[in-house]
Amino acid sequence: MPLSGAIELTDNRYGKAENRVVRFFKQDARHEIRDVNVTTTLRGDFAEAYTEGDQRHVLPTDTQKHMTFVYAQRGIETIEGYALGLAAHFVDSVEPVTSARIDVEAYAWQRISIDGVEHDHSWSRLGPEVRTAAVTVSGDGTWVVGGIKDLVVLKSTGSEFNGFLVDEFTTLPPTDDRVLATSLVVNWRFADTTGFDWDEVFAGIRATLLELFATTYSKALQQTLYAMGTAVLERFPMLAEIRLSAPNKHHFDYNLGQFGIENKGEVFWAADRPYGSIHATLTRSDAPEAGPAWEA
Amino acid sequence: MPLSGAIELTDNRYGKAENRVVRFFKQDARHEIRDVNVTTTLRGDFAEAYTEGDQRHVLPTDTQKHMTFVYAQRGIETIEGYALGLAAHFVDSVEPVTSARIDVEAYAWQRISIDGVEHDHSWSRLGPEVRTAAVTVSGDGTWVVGGIKDLVVLKSTGSEFNGFLVDEFTTLPPTDDRVLATSLVVNWRFADTTGFDWDEVFAGIRATLLELFATTYSKALQQTLYAMGTAVLERFPMLAEIRLSAPNKHHFDYNLGQFGIENKGEVFWAADRPYGSIHATLTRSDAPEAGPAWEA
Amino acid sequence: MPLSGAIELTDNRYGKAENRVVRFFKQDARHEIRDVNVTTTLRGDFAEAYTEGDQRHVLPTDTQKHMTFVYAQRGIETIEGYALGLAAHFVDSVEPVTSARIDVEAYAWQRISIDGVEHDHSWSRLGPEVRTAAVTVSGDGTWVVGGIKDLVVLKSTGSEFNGFLVDEFTTLPPTDDRVLATSLVVNWRFADTTGFDWDEVFAGIRATLLELFATTYSKALQQTLYAMGTAVLERFPMLAEIRLSAPNKHHFDYNLGQFGIENKGEVFWAADRPYGSIHATLTRSDAPEAGPAWEA
Amino acid sequence: MPLSGAIELTDNRYGKAENRVVRFFKQDARHEIRDVNVTTTLRGDFAEAYTEGDQRHVLPTDTQKHMTFVYAQRGIETIEGYALGLAAHFVDSVEPVTSARIDVEAYAWQRISIDGVEHDHSWSRLGPEVRTAAVTVSGDGTWVVGGIKDLVVLKSTGSEFNGFLVDEFTTLPPTDDRVLATSLVVNWRFADTTGFDWDEVFAGIRATLLELFATTYSKALQQTLYAMGTAVLERFPMLAEIRLSAPNKHHFDYNLGQFGIENKGEVFWAADRPYGSIHATLTRSDAPEAGPAWEA
Repeated sequence: MPLSGAIELTDNRYGKAENRVVRFFKQDARHEIRDVNVTTTLRGDFAEAYTEGDQRHVLPTDTQKHMTFVYAQRGIETIEGYALGLAAHFVDSVEPVTSARIDVEAYAWQRISIDGVEHDHSWSRLGPEVRTAAVTVSGDGTWVVGGIKDLVVLKSTGSEFNGFLVDEFTTLPPTDDRVLATSLVVNWRFADTTGFDWDEVFAGIRATLLELFATTYSKALQQTLYAMGTAVLERFPMLAEIRLSAPNKHHFDYNLGQFGIENKGEVFWAADRPYGSIHATLTRSDAPEAGPAWEA
Repeated sequence: MPLSGAIELTDNRYGKAENRVVRFFKQDARHEIRDVNVTTTLRGDFAEAYTEGDQRHVLPTDTQKHMTFVYAQRGIETIEGYALGLAAHFVDSVEPVTSARIDVEAYAWQRISIDGVEHDHSWSRLGPEVRTAAVTVSGDGTWVVGGIKDLVVLKSTGSEFNGFLVDEFTTLPPTDDRVLATSLVVNWRFADTTGFDWDEVFAGIRATLLELFATTYSKALQQTLYAMGTAVLERFPMLAEIRLSAPNKHHFDYNLGQFGIENKGEVFWAADRPYGSIHATLTRSDAPEAGPAWEA
Repeated sequence: MPLSGAIELTDNRYGKAENRVVRFFKQDARHEIRDVNVTTTLRGDFAEAYTEGDQRHVLPTDTQKHMTFVYAQRGIETIEGYALGLAAHFVDSVEPVTSARIDVEAYAWQRISIDGVEHDHSWSRLGPEVRTAAVTVSGDGTWVVGGIKDLVVLKSTGSEFNGFLVDEFTTLPPTDDRVLATSLVVNWRFADTTGFDWDEVFAGIRATLLELFATTYSKALQQTLYAMGTAVLERFPMLAEIRLSAPNKHHFDYNLGQFGIENKGEVFWAADRPYGSIHATLTRSDAPEAGPAWEA
Repeated sequence: MPLSGAIELTDNRYGKAENRVVRFFKQDARHEIRDVNVTTTLRGDFAEAYTEGDQRHVLPTDTQKHMTFVYAQRGIETIEGYALGLAAHFVDSVEPVTSARIDVEAYAWQRISIDGVEHDHSWSRLGPEVRTAAVTVSGDGTWVVGGIKDLVVLKSTGSEFNGFLVDEFTTLPPTDDRVLATSLVVNWRFADTTGFDWDEVFAGIRATLLELFATTYSKALQQTLYAMGTAVLERFPMLAEIRLSAPNKHHFDYNLGQFGIENKGEVFWAADRPYGSIHATLTRSDAPEAGPAWEA
């Protein structure tokens, strides 16, 4: 049935995406580096920019860009702390802004070592994994989501997949030994923003994810994600919720038998597409409301 | 304050992502082509796969892959129709499934023309834009979201930006003539799924987006998005809602004056990052509930 | 046997890569657009910058960047003409430069049409194919290589592959009807730089490539490339040489027979990797020397 | 002057690109992993496949794919050794093949550590850098080129750029302290293929590149590349030649002074494009001929 109701601007937001900020600390000969990609997103009283083309309330995205650098100058001790300060600036100092979200990607660098001695001001990039933070500040509160993405992991055994539902279109043979590989995207919502060290918590969560991936005998990637998520929430009581997304990066046994060659589960073809796609959200029963924390 | 509540699996879903399905119709010498990238996502009674490693209810993603091809064989007259059939299959035929979402990207091909005559079975790819569809079927209903992404547009005049909020960190000079360029991602939610032709509606929306981009004198990208969205909803009464996302792909006047050369608004540097990021959602007042339509 | 000879700087070059230049022509209400990505590469008397850190002969890459815009202001009637002028500037005006190479990628835009009428100053991007040019100017002469890349083509029949070499590791079944798909990268070297219209030649070569792809009954991608290259050289006597590279983008029949469904050569899986990789170079017997034309 | 000479197929080659081979060694509970991307390229008596569509001499690329896995099963102790065996197979066992080139990319994995103990069969990916090898075997000899790519390095001081050539278009201010950052692509040609350990040499070259980047006071990226290349050749007498390519990834001081904030060389914007592009080749005076080693 055709609709005829009035057309309304029911949501809007804007900002400056992917400000590539590099901050050094040169207080002494041993420099420190923070290498981040920062996106600002503002909500507020901006409807007339859309409906009337009236910019009176619109802080230019160019100004938002400036602020990502100004706050970098003030310090990036942790990316969460930096994002909290930057978000608060927009809400506190720019009248039409009611809510600010700051997304940060942090790229890791390791000092170049020469004969075991770390260099003072030279680094090489370490990846592929990237640490992330998403901070939202509004009049109603503050939300922090930490995360890691592109954490690529693989195990060569300790993984099976069988006992699954079989319908008339199912041809997959069950297996009791397969390669399990994925590229994790994990985000965790903090229940509080004080009383702990952001970097320590990040390092602990990362270690926990890796540990559980390695040590969980996997009956499915689903089970592995659940084990990871449970362990993280158990060990880090400042967390309310965790979301895990994982492509099942399929590794197929290569058929060498057709050439009279035995493949003892050692030679695989790593496929690109399609891939399985598994998602889990774990939440504590006493978690505070998520509010806008997950609004990308 | 540390949390101690029980840890619960509060959401989960899984599927097979990026099945690259190519379907020809060879009923006569003049072949037709459909080139799609299909992702399946299932929700339902799958918790025990996570919590217990029990796969009894889990239809393998390999089987889901098969179904994207089986339904392609049955026909892809429109991508929306194809996705509706595929989603319904999972909900109707696989007992633990309560909800199925099918995401489709469709790649455009144009027939190769030789001296003005179209070839029967040879094509070249046409892009960069990609048509999309996201269909969700559950016991509660059916939701269809159509879309287009990577629709890159540019206008060399007819765009200004001034009268904006100026704070102590604002250095951007106002301008009454600038280049406006963006790469649109637009999605529209249908209020109904019958009574019109999917392909006609898509073609009409695409033409409307381009028309309004071209003909709207732009006081800001926000205003342009609003004009596009309003026109689409006005012209297509089967739509309940439209969401537009647009990077402001900055083109900066190149300073040739430093060399004594006049740049009459004709020479620009196209920057990569950072970029503005503008978003708008427009909804009819009588739109039905969105339900799970936008759950990516 | 260990070497002990003196270490010599045997080659060097430098420049500014990927200058994203957008040039409009606004002589009247109907604007024109040129959207290019320009890379400069200089050779010359620069060894001491490497061996001694002496920059006396080094024109900054920042200055090279400026020149890509300065020459854009002077006009980009054709990308080949633009590149020839820019290359000559460096060789003629910058004393230590003995040779300059300019690489250009040109992105296509089409005017937005509203009810069949083209708009004066609004466009949408057209791809994925990209036109290219590589011009080298030195004291010894001038070389121009035109090209096209990412020209993705596909035919649904008219392609076979059989009668190939079979060894003990060959399992591929011969086929007399398959999908042939590729993403062409083709470059052609001009024997001369005057006496014809660059844009007309480009359009003609592009049309020839498409025509031959469509109309050649293909016994192998090799044969198709050869047919394309031969036709281009035959039709365009200003060309000395053509190089064609083509991934064989495999499309595999999907096995629906396992479900009792007939697949009449209509349902395919488009694979990503691995892919075949086929290359051919065709040259006229009276072609002038290639010189540095192909030094990327 | 139009050409009219006969059109000849002057070069051709073909193969299978990007075979994603993963090889485990499971001789005991502590597994080993080799994760490689392998491309085969054959030259030989293949002209009739192009000119006549005659496949009699053409070994299918599908068979070449098989061989990348068959040789993986036989072992990938080093990627150079693996590639040498695979290349020799094609030349020795496939009659029309006169020359075979094998390109390998090797992805690094590190064992997951739990409380300082390395896990037996679980890893996480380590990057972004990738080790490479390109081996060519023909009747005339054997050539091995080792390499590393995407080795991203940065130093926060110890780099200047001044004393450069200034022409009328030069506006760059000289600097005696800047950030130097690049993403190295380095390839080295071996003079011999025996008498040393491939992995030890790779590790040594990588360490040398990092050391020289860190410890060389840089008057230009050119000088840094030269210092790296010289040190590598000096320390590794089995090398004949080294080629270094390096984008100058510009980091621009952010102008905070406009806000009355001092930027003591600590806050930078990392730009994407354009970027400088610097190349150097160093060769020993007693190097053997390069032959086809560098034919990509």
